[in-house]
Amino acid sequence: MAINNELTFDVVIIGAGPAGLTCSIYASRGNLKVAFIDKGAPGGKMTATYEIENWSGEENIKGYELSTKMLNHALKLGAKHIYGNVIRIENISEFEHYVYLENNQKIKAKAIVIASGMDNKKPPIPNIDFYNNKGVSYCVICDAPFYKNKPAAIIGGGDSAFEESIYLSSIASKVYIFIRKSYPKAEPKMVEDVQKIDNIEIFYNSEIVELFGKEQLEKVKYIENGEEKFKEINHLYPYIGFLPINYFAKDLPIFDANGFIETNENMETKVKGIYAIGDVRQKSIRQIVTAASDGAIAGKILTNKIKK
Amino acid sequence: MAINNELTFDVVIIGAGPAGLTCSIYASRGNLKVAFIDKGAPGGKMTATYEIENWSGEENIKGYELSTKMLNHALKLGAKHIYGNVIRIENISEFEHYVYLENNQKIKAKAIVIASGMDNKKPPIPNIDFYNNKGVSYCVICDAPFYKNKPAAIIGGGDSAFEESIYLSSIASKVYIFIRKSYPKAEPKMVEDVQKIDNIEIFYNSEIVELFGKEQLEKVKYIENGEEKFKEINHLYPYIGFLPINYFAKDLPIFDANGFIETNENMETKVKGIYAIGDVRQKSIRQIVTAASDGAIAGKILTNKIKK
Ligand SMILES: Cc1cc2nc3c(=O)[nH]c(=O)nc-3n(C[C@H](O)[C@H](O)[C@H](O)COP(=O)(O)OP(=O)(O)OC[C@H]3O[C@@H](n4cnc5c(N)ncnc54)[C@H](O)[C@@H]3O)c2cc1C
Ligand SMILES: Cc1cc2nc3c(=O)[nH]c(=O)nc-3n(C[C@H](O)[C@H](O)[C@H](O)COP(=O)(O)OP(=O)(O)OC[C@H]3O[C@@H](n4cnc5c(N)ncnc54)[C@H](O)[C@@H]3O)c2cc1C
Repeated sequence: MAINNELTFDVVIIGAGPAGLTCSIYASRGNLKVAFIDKGAPGGKMTATYEIENWSGEENIKGYELSTKMLNHALKLGAKHIYGNVIRIENISEFEHYVYLENNQKIKAKAIVIASGMDNKKPPIPNIDFYNNKGVSYCVICDAPFYKNKPAAIIGGGDSAFEESIYLSSIASKVYIFIRKSYPKAEPKMVEDVQKIDNIEIFYNSEIVELFGKEQLEKVKYIENGEEKFKEINHLYPYIGFLPINYFAKDLPIFDANGFIETNENMETKVKGIYAIGDVRQKSIRQIVTAASDGAIAGKILTNKIKK
Repeated sequence: MAINNELTFDVVIIGAGPAGLTCSIYASRGNLKVAFIDKGAPGGKMTATYEIENWSGEENIKGYELSTKMLNHALKLGAKHIYGNVIRIENISEFEHYVYLENNQKIKAKAIVIASGMDNKKPPIPNIDFYNNKGVSYCVICDAPFYKNKPAAIIGGGDSAFEESIYLSSIASKVYIFIRKSYPKAEPKMVEDVQKIDNIEIFYNSEIVELFGKEQLEKVKYIENGEEKFKEINHLYPYIGFLPINYFAKDLPIFDANGFIETNENMETKVKGIYAIGDVRQKSIRQIVTAASDGAIAGKILTNKIKK
């Protein structure tokens, strides 16, 4: 496969969420030739987040709006956007790496930054995949509007589960939150907010075990405190956890036991010239601002490391 | 001294720069009763920064504007702004602390977050302040990109001076390092790296004594080995030392040898119930977004820790 001269960069960033875009901003300001690759819409998870209330300085901003602002910022500073799915990376030496895209493109880089985020965990409901796009979705904001005024459910007791239930409650006729444990894991403020909403009902010690419906989801079977029950539900959103996206780097010795990437405080992995930032990194708190901070640090460090 | 009931909070944050304000935002959303104290204008160093080009999503924003946006965000969520100079803090137990202001106020808190930032040591050049925001800056990564391809200088012979000169060399046309002594204080490896870079020149036994330029910095006068010389320079960065602001906490066992506060990744210091975030913390890269990220993390952790 020939390497197009156009496709040689100082830094290639895999993923254009807040981590990748902020890294692009910092590395571009540092005069590096930067490309960021994404297989989806730039902005990452922000594009699928309806409202954001904790990005400092913005009391309330739509996810797509913050995505667009960060994307334009990175482009304005000269970073190049490449659309594509990274399927493999190869490291030859500290300053020579290759990134392979599904469409057969091969891109050369002096350094690679992995900013691929994470995916959603699937609950162990045997027939859940059958209902994908037929009522089951991992993105409330994307799919809830297709089911206006119909009863909905969320699975999970964490921040995202509660946060998305608020949005869902303004679209669905009724929202049930199914939590396996006897208590919520989400922030107290968020739980309080949810409890104030009339059409949200929380079931603790409850687990959905089977889905029903011919063409579309119509009903769920759940176990509540050991007892089998049924509920009419037309759309269902699992928010029970995440899987770091790392399929393109599997052979590299950079992961922890859960598949997250280990780095030092400079975002360097154990492999020289390969960095990791944002949700895909092993860390305690995954937010837009912590992802952006990772990106800034990597961008700064790269500027010091890469010689022209 | 009586404790006014009004002056009891879950969290008291010392300093309202990006770290303190973002911590206020996160802790307030976490349903905590939050106060942030500042002896100056909220916004911290941002208030004295003319233009900011690396806050993700804002291609170019005035420092006072970002300060105002963050301040309003924190206030909107219910955090209380207290104006005053903290002169002492006292810790009784994990969840009982007192903050003393210069005006004799005493404030009770379940947790204290230190977000007081740092100052930069200023070289004794008589007219240096005149060139603030006109070529003289204490932050290479923040301001060098405003002067692309123009000759620059760094003052200092320590690690940060050398490290920042590497960054600067990829942006400026030429970088001069002025060192008063006859040898560098920086790590040998870093000095070696710098010596390899074509457009960096080091002057030992050299001291800048006067700055010239009508609106913007144009030229410097320096003494090299006793001899008076001139050099065309458009941007100048003193890196002769940092002064973390810690006078109110001197007796606590939380500092490193340079006076910065040591924390773990959750921003906890060695003293239970006392946290540190932002520039005052021991860390490698000091930026608005890294300060904000520290604040978010502390705010989230505090929400989990403090029981009502
Ligand atoms: C429902 C929900 C709501 C949230 N709300 C908030 C909130 O209000 N405030 C907040 O601060 N945080 C919020 N978060 C968390 C926040 O969205 C994430 O922490 C943040 O987006 C992580 O940024 P990132 O850049 O690391 O990854 P992501 O945003 O996940 O971006 C990763 C990008 O990498 C791309 N990618 C992955 N693999 C490849 C590949 N092989 N090839 C090419 N591209 C690839 C993906 O397409 C994606 O665009 C929310 C999260 C969720 C799930
Ligand atoms: C010239 C310059 C330009 C910069 N430009 C940029 C840029 O473009 N982009 C970027 O990302 N970063 C920039 N930075 C860095 C950035 O400003 C800092 O990293 C950031 O402001 C640190 O935030 P902080 O909240 O930790 O501290 P600070 O912003 O320093 O805020 C600390 C606050 O604590 C208050 N305080 C201190 N002691 C007390 C006390 N005893 N009682 C009460 N209040 C107290 C102070 O008044 C101050 O308001 C720049 C820095 C400098 C010096």
